[in-house]
Amino acid sequence: MDIATLRKEHPEHWNKAAAIRVLTLDAVAAANSGHSGMPMGMADVATVLFEKHLKFDPKNPQWPDRDRFILSAGHGSMLLYSLLHLTGYADMTIDQIKNFRQWGAITAGHPEFGHATGIETTTGPLGQGLANSVGFAMAEEIQRAHYGKKVVDHYTYVIAGDGCLMEGVSHEAIALAGRQELSKLIVFWDNNGITIDGKVEISDRTNQPMRFEASGWHVQEIDGHDPVAIDAAIAAAKKSDKPSMIACATHIALGSSAQDTSKGHGALTDATLIADTRKVYGWDHAPFVIPVDVQAGWAAIGARGASEFTEWTARFEALPGGKQSDFTRAYALDAPQKISAAVKALKKKISEEQPKVATRKSSEMTLEVLNPLLPETVGGSADLTGSNNTKTPDLGVFTPEDRKGRYVYYGIREHGMCSAMNGMALHGGVRPYGGTFMCFTDYARPAMRLAALMKIPTVFVMTHDSIGLGEDGPTHQPVEHLAISRATPNTYVFRPADTVETAEAWEVALTVKDTPSVMALSRQNLPTVRLEHKNKNLTALGAYVLRDATAKREAILMATGSEVEIALKAADMLEAEGIGVRVVSMPCMELFEAQDDAYRKRILPGGPVRVAIEAGVQMGWDKWLTGERGKSTKAGFVGMTGFGASAPAPTLYEKFGITAEETVKKVKELLGK
Amino acid sequence: MDIATLRKEHPEHWNKAAAIRVLTLDAVAAANSGHSGMPMGMADVATVLFEKHLKFDPKNPQWPDRDRFILSAGHGSMLLYSLLHLTGYADMTIDQIKNFRQWGAITAGHPEFGHATGIETTTGPLGQGLANSVGFAMAEEIQRAHYGKKVVDHYTYVIAGDGCLMEGVSHEAIALAGRQELSKLIVFWDNNGITIDGKVEISDRTNQPMRFEASGWHVQEIDGHDPVAIDAAIAAAKKSDKPSMIACATHIALGSSAQDTSKGHGALTDATLIADTRKVYGWDHAPFVIPVDVQAGWAAIGARGASEFTEWTARFEALPGGKQSDFTRAYALDAPQKISAAVKALKKKISEEQPKVATRKSSEMTLEVLNPLLPETVGGSADLTGSNNTKTPDLGVFTPEDRKGRYVYYGIREHGMCSAMNGMALHGGVRPYGGTFMCFTDYARPAMRLAALMKIPTVFVMTHDSIGLGEDGPTHQPVEHLAISRATPNTYVFRPADTVETAEAWEVALTVKDTPSVMALSRQNLPTVRLEHKNKNLTALGAYVLRDATAKREAILMATGSEVEIALKAADMLEAEGIGVRVVSMPCMELFEAQDDAYRKRILPGGPVRVAIEAGVQMGWDKWLTGERGKSTKAGFVGMTGFGASAPAPTLYEKFGITAEETVKKVKELLGK
Repeated sequence: MDIATLRKEHPEHWNKAAAIRVLTLDAVAAANSGHSGMPMGMADVATVLFEKHLKFDPKNPQWPDRDRFILSAGHGSMLLYSLLHLTGYADMTIDQIKNFRQWGAITAGHPEFGHATGIETTTGPLGQGLANSVGFAMAEEIQRAHYGKKVVDHYTYVIAGDGCLMEGVSHEAIALAGRQELSKLIVFWDNNGITIDGKVEISDRTNQPMRFEASGWHVQEIDGHDPVAIDAAIAAAKKSDKPSMIACATHIALGSSAQDTSKGHGALTDATLIADTRKVYGWDHAPFVIPVDVQAGWAAIGARGASEFTEWTARFEALPGGKQSDFTRAYALDAPQKISAAVKALKKKISEEQPKVATRKSSEMTLEVLNPLLPETVGGSADLTGSNNTKTPDLGVFTPEDRKGRYVYYGIREHGMCSAMNGMALHGGVRPYGGTFMCFTDYARPAMRLAALMKIPTVFVMTHDSIGLGEDGPTHQPVEHLAISRATPNTYVFRPADTVETAEAWEVALTVKDTPSVMALSRQNLPTVRLEHKNKNLTALGAYVLRDATAKREAILMATGSEVEIALKAADMLEAEGIGVRVVSMPCMELFEAQDDAYRKRILPGGPVRVAIEAGVQMGWDKWLTGERGKSTKAGFVGMTGFGASAPAPTLYEKFGITAEETVKKVKELLGK
Repeated sequence: MDIATLRKEHPEHWNKAAAIRVLTLDAVAAANSGHSGMPMGMADVATVLFEKHLKFDPKNPQWPDRDRFILSAGHGSMLLYSLLHLTGYADMTIDQIKNFRQWGAITAGHPEFGHATGIETTTGPLGQGLANSVGFAMAEEIQRAHYGKKVVDHYTYVIAGDGCLMEGVSHEAIALAGRQELSKLIVFWDNNGITIDGKVEISDRTNQPMRFEASGWHVQEIDGHDPVAIDAAIAAAKKSDKPSMIACATHIALGSSAQDTSKGHGALTDATLIADTRKVYGWDHAPFVIPVDVQAGWAAIGARGASEFTEWTARFEALPGGKQSDFTRAYALDAPQKISAAVKALKKKISEEQPKVATRKSSEMTLEVLNPLLPETVGGSADLTGSNNTKTPDLGVFTPEDRKGRYVYYGIREHGMCSAMNGMALHGGVRPYGGTFMCFTDYARPAMRLAALMKIPTVFVMTHDSIGLGEDGPTHQPVEHLAISRATPNTYVFRPADTVETAEAWEVALTVKDTPSVMALSRQNLPTVRLEHKNKNLTALGAYVLRDATAKREAILMATGSEVEIALKAADMLEAEGIGVRVVSMPCMELFEAQDDAYRKRILPGGPVRVAIEAGVQMGWDKWLTGERGKSTKAGFVGMTGFGASAPAPTLYEKFGITAEETVKKVKELLGK
């Protein structure tokens, strides 16, 4: 539908949509950067969605039963900011729009979760919003199954661009959504045929409708500028019992001289182009000025949900008190008090029984205790359930037939799993964790980073965390992945040494509110090293003295996970020679770093030689070896310097020199003995 | 086709395929680990492929015009090892098979490129082989266009499993191959319906044939145990002008009690099961023993290509001498001598003209000089051509219509691009480089790691390498990505400070044979800091003194890339106060680490305070700050401690305190002044 027809046949709609388009042009011009074309192209779809379908209340942006609107094509952030401003979200003032992309503004270049209400997830890295949306829709299904349709019954809407659909993660997301028949997920594809390098066809000729159908989706193709067609398509999508994709043929940078070109994708800042476009739009108002009638039209849209919110509140308050408090507690990410006692009891039992098990098994043992106490956990694995030990008997399996199931068979989709988990965490009410092999954090990196950036407590269960996995060889043996996770800001990387530390790590991971956790767990069996029960969560301190020197303290051995056993053995050998050795277990560097200087100094005093032992690369350890009162002449590392190899684990430890003997040798060298 | 029918109707085929199956059972049993089911399921397809179609000569495994066989489902490595052994690859002895998955054997758990001839790529991380294959097929097209069909005319065959097809990277690979109409790419899908967690349908119900058709593939569906059907399908696929997918319905762990179960996916080591299976196979021979007639059959298959190789050699030798030597040189990864002179000339010009340009532009300036001298380079970008500055005028564009084009519009497919580039490098004859934003190394991680593991010189051009990209904000601003790349073994991470260093970095990246390079390049303009021309490649030393102290040396400032400018400014300010400062530019930590101790000590002597400046996280710097004769009380870092923000770059540098002023302050604090 061309602009003339649109203006003539749908004048009110046109003006509402034009407000988005012009705000975008104005904000991008003011910032002298940004992406104009996408909001200009998708304004019609967004206007109809917000006007006729989206359940939302700007006065209650945290309303748990709101529909979620996800802008997967995050570069078009001005579309979202315009919508939030126009519909009356209090924080999205016109000044924020004027300060688009400036320091301190909530209107970042790409939508950042936590900056403004109404931003459901951080997008920009393409495909992520779409992949998050699968988690949003799953969380909705799970919550609906638990709390009933009266209090949980909402849709997840997504705008995805060509980039989102080219990214591999889109395949994982689409296939998972199709399999799970997530009928309340509705995706608009901004089918504008343009990417940065030119026409889409230069790099992609995928038949997208056919592709979605192949994964079990309901598909429609419409003119993305025709409000009647948009409305009808959304109505039909809502009725479908499959996830829906609506292919919206649109013109990027509609109405400007850059329309339908890759120039239109970027920042349109040319004054003449902007003036000309305003003329085409019939928009005769100063920059950032929305005329009163258009304002009123949008305000009415923003007010539409108020009564629904009131009705919902009444229904929610009619729930049994226990259900209400459970619901609220889970949304607030408040873990039940009782998990602390449960963890203590488990730790005590373990310290007494001293089992020798892999920490992936320890993790399962912990989850067996905690999952029944935390009905909000949703577990899963990327097709390694038996290896990741992520499934406990009480969870059930999430399927179209059982929406109460709390375990997800994600398939061989590490990236899609982690993005979906982020979506669940962002939706609220559930606490997701999911597993794969540590080496395949590589596949999931974009999602793991976004969890950290968004400050959400997704838990990434990463088993087979070193060469200790043995025969599968270097493709499956992480060596740099602990460093990678530790290099990522706002991420707790736990590498517990035994079941006690694993339980403690889970306690932190399931109570923290704003930090994701990586659980690096062994494939191989490890002895219990915490032989004396302590109520206190020592892992929460990041590092602690596991065993202090008996003879005069000359060395400190630091280790994590499976190498703590080696440190203890080396300490025994050195002590037998009269060399006093302190063994420090360091299950979480980030938490240790967060302790005050006095505590860190107590654990790592200056003076003794320091040797760290970890079956990974050294990067990340220098801080504790030569920094933090250490000395470069008195520090050593026992670990990996390159990739692993395929052989039984004990052989690999021997061949790569990660042994008590090598540790003893290094300590004595450093001591000059 | 059931086993009885197969044995009856195709006894010779059956015995050949049974040899693969039994070798697999025997090797897995000996190793007590591995994956039995896949080779048992796909033995028929592999047998027909090798017997009737694959162009190969075990006596000349590096024959450039051989067909490539890629086992994307790498866990089924015994399929490949069996084939290589049976067809007579000299290095794949029966002893190697007996030592499957043992230290020092070439028969690693997953096929490792470089371990044995006939292993075309390292697989195991699912989807990678399939994504590599797109690069193989592209390299073949490019080479064929350049050298003619008489010397380059081969197919790329792939076996992919359900896991490969669930991974997101498969989508990127399939769509790219479809767009490029890579008709000599033939993929067998091992459609066995089983994954580790159970039936495929528990996590995936994608209609794979439809999905491939949606991306422009030729699709066939066959009984994967019927040799006649397999043969016919391959013949039809070869005739198609599209890439081909052959869906092979197979039974995982065929003929064993674990057939069609997820148990069958793993290691079948039970003696009774193995004995029973041998009976079903009618295989009455000791473990690892192949009867003479079967051996002879396979030997004949292995001998099939010898005459073709001879004929090819004659055709190759009929090429003009220059073409022959170019061809051979490119395969040997020998860069032409003249590039050294070209780089020197460029450096000299730059040191004289001292342009202020972004290093991404410096990179383009270098490529403009080098691409015409290296006909083997193939450039590209994941839809950021204008931003990554990867396209030079001479390249042309690779399309179905122009196979001589040396520039690839990869689309928004960072992962697929990097995997395809690896495939090109592995194919040989071409040197691939390709660009995206540094932050999206996250998307490409699995491929970047595999390049390092495989020791291939893929070049990853990663522009917009810090908060210096400005307004796009934290989703696009790498902070941990330098550390991530540096943590990866066998990877050169270059972060050049100006055009001279960029040219030097490219010289290393395009001459090295066994190490991939990451080019971290700025979005923002940077001054030329190498004002005095030196013929020597200083970047190849990793770090060097860019400017030494004038006053008594009290401090060493280390920096990379865009922060070298800040270091120089800070040095000016400190020198003005009489504090002598050495400025060390460190464009490549890995190359600096590779220098001898004397050189490193000359650059970083003990004594002065050390401050490093880099707009990224500190991890990776401690080695040079407090290690390497440094002291924890005399070391500081000016950089990022968390994620970035959305604002103009100068504001971000100011707000995050990455400035000359902050550097001066830190130095003076450490000096107690």
